Amino acid sequence: MTGIQTDEVLARATFGADGLLPAVIQQHDTGEVLMLGYMDAEALRRTLTEGRTTFWSRSRQEYWRKGDTSGHVQYVKSAAFDCDADTLLVQVDQIGPACHTGARRCFDVDPLEVVVGGAGESS
Amino acid sequence: MTGIQTDEVLARATFGADGLLPAVIQQHDTGEVLMLGYMDAEALRRTLTEGRTTFWSRSRQEYWRKGDTSGHVQYVKSAAFDCDADTLLVQVDQIGPACHTGARRCFDVDPLEVVVGGAGESS
Repeated sequence: MTGIQTDEVLARATFGADGLLPAVIQQHDTGEVLMLGYMDAEALRRTLTEGRTTFWSRSRQEYWRKGDTSGHVQYVKSAAFDCDADTLLVQVDQIGPACHTGARRCFDVDPLEVVVGGAGESS
Repeated sequence: MTGIQTDEVLARATFGADGLLPAVIQQHDTGEVLMLGYMDAEALRRTLTEGRTTFWSRSRQEYWRKGDTSGHVQYVKSAAFDCDADTLLVQVDQIGPACHTGARRCFDVDPLEVVVGGAGESS
């Protein structure tokens, strides 16, 4: 895709031993963390150049462009590596629920009981 | 820690082949995604019960309680698994910068050029 320095980005990316890196998917306007998926180099290339997120499904061992079967598309708004380029943050516009369970985001379901830290607070 | 069903949580967690799961760390009030770290069962137990985040450092192969050397503590506010319990989202109050580079968050440094998706927008 003209103007996108995709080769440079792919050269910078640090993939794990399995050839994948985790991609945190965040709703661009609300800040909700929707899900985490995995990308190999090709999924990353597609995500940067197609305006939609593509993941590598570890369970199905195939590419998975979010929304192709469900309609719950993620339109890419921006993306950034972390400081050592082994994690990606993608800000998206999520159409409908992000989770295959039908929940808006994958993390809503069951908050854990925690000891809350910080001055003057307890769980 | 009394009242925390830590054993149940640990039994639900799905760790990877390396015994780790990724933990997305988010500032609880602003929604900023600060960083991603990895936890094994013991790091997860400590994070749920100590009010502060502990990670497993893959590079140093040791536990790392965030802020012990830098002072840049992460106070735990809440935590949730995703739908298949192989990723954790932890909402924290981050004291100072989250990144070892001194940046507030690890993802600020270098946003990537992307093709923006969605109706009526282009990069």
